[in-house]
Amino acid sequence: MAMKNIKLEISYDGTNFCGFQIQPELRTVQGELQRSLSIISQSKITINASGRTDTGVHARKQVCNFLTDLDIPSYKWAEVLNPLLPDDIVILNSSEVPLDFHSRYHVKRKTYRYAVHHNKTLDVFRRNYTWFYPYPLDITRMQEASQLFLGEHDFTAFSSIKASVKSKIRIISSSEVWQEGNEIYFQVTGNGFLYNMVRIMMGTLISCSRNKITPTELIDLFSTKERGKAGTTAPAKGLTLWDVEY
Amino acid sequence: MAMKNIKLEISYDGTNFCGFQIQPELRTVQGELQRSLSIISQSKITINASGRTDTGVHARKQVCNFLTDLDIPSYKWAEVLNPLLPDDIVILNSSEVPLDFHSRYHVKRKTYRYAVHHNKTLDVFRRNYTWFYPYPLDITRMQEASQLFLGEHDFTAFSSIKASVKSKIRIISSSEVWQEGNEIYFQVTGNGFLYNMVRIMMGTLISCSRNKITPTELIDLFSTKERGKAGTTAPAKGLTLWDVEY
Repeated sequence: MAMKNIKLEISYDGTNFCGFQIQPELRTVQGELQRSLSIISQSKITINASGRTDTGVHARKQVCNFLTDLDIPSYKWAEVLNPLLPDDIVILNSSEVPLDFHSRYHVKRKTYRYAVHHNKTLDVFRRNYTWFYPYPLDITRMQEASQLFLGEHDFTAFSSIKASVKSKIRIISSSEVWQEGNEIYFQVTGNGFLYNMVRIMMGTLISCSRNKITPTELIDLFSTKERGKAGTTAPAKGLTLWDVEY
Repeated sequence: MAMKNIKLEISYDGTNFCGFQIQPELRTVQGELQRSLSIISQSKITINASGRTDTGVHARKQVCNFLTDLDIPSYKWAEVLNPLLPDDIVILNSSEVPLDFHSRYHVKRKTYRYAVHHNKTLDVFRRNYTWFYPYPLDITRMQEASQLFLGEHDFTAFSSIKASVKSKIRIISSSEVWQEGNEIYFQVTGNGFLYNMVRIMMGTLISCSRNKITPTELIDLFSTKERGKAGTTAPAKGLTLWDVEY
């Protein structure tokens, strides 16, 4: 049988997963996907994804791919796998892609959305999907600060010290903050993101809102690269991988 | 100390509760509320609610009350209890009410909302709050059928055979079906609801949509009282107690 490269668009609720990447003894998205694939293929199949997501981080659309010689029509993989998956992962669609397609190496842009629940009382229905923030916020300041992320910058100050990649320069092509009812959204698109980058950007926007970081100080972070002068890392549960483009 | 009657407006995500009513060994909303109240009062306090909700049923607004001689300002009860409650229950506010106020006996109207997720693929973020229904639906037929519930009727056919109340006559003052994106909502207000009534009304609207129950057949159910001729009981997780009025 000829090998085929199958691309999956998947969505998952990160609440009950120890992140995307497979780990022994832990419930992970990759682990569940590979387990269901191995039931079908009766052999071990390794999947690639556009990137990892941390414990508690969600995906509206994550992209994966895997190689198989099974003779299943490409669009049928979603139908075949969904009944074998737990109800907090769903395959939105499946398609065949060229053999050299790699869901991580070929990413052009990724979009993340961060959601803040801004109200005096917790909304129990949004508790796993938002950062509950009952303190005053200045949306206009957050919107102005979000524009400073645009363009090509060194995001060292906005990444976990655990980030081990060589270049910490990334290009942000879209960065927006808006309010809908009791929720404030920060949505950001870029050619790549460092470890914890969106969560630290979000924490920094909150600091800007409270005037603890001025616009000038934010801009200086790109050159001083001081992680300690950026905002805190916002909680994982407010973050959703929104889209991946190739 | 003089006795005070404290009214609580609460909200809960029913997913991980075995319903509202306290039961030994099971995690219930009433059990959690009374447990947190007993920590404060150092004695057993029993709460009344506007009514029970089943396993998996949610509440945007449920109303409870309890008697206490503790000298805590009435509006402070929410602040005191919230930190002691699990994160799937929240007290929206607390206030003092006359001693003869009873959250069940004095209900004037209750409103429930039922949510159907109508799309080809499951939305993992809505899986606990909606009935995932991937089959064709005719919204106009559902809207027309929903109007037939309005007024004073015998709802025997729309209640579980387990319902033990004497009178099964209820007055429905509002009954609406509408669509927002991939979701269809059925919201109904009445002076009272029988056991499983909203879920059976919802199942019946689906049967109407698929033309398995005609408008005439629906109207006939009020007089024939045949539970078996109404629709199925829609899943609990799509149902939310929306409002209680006094």
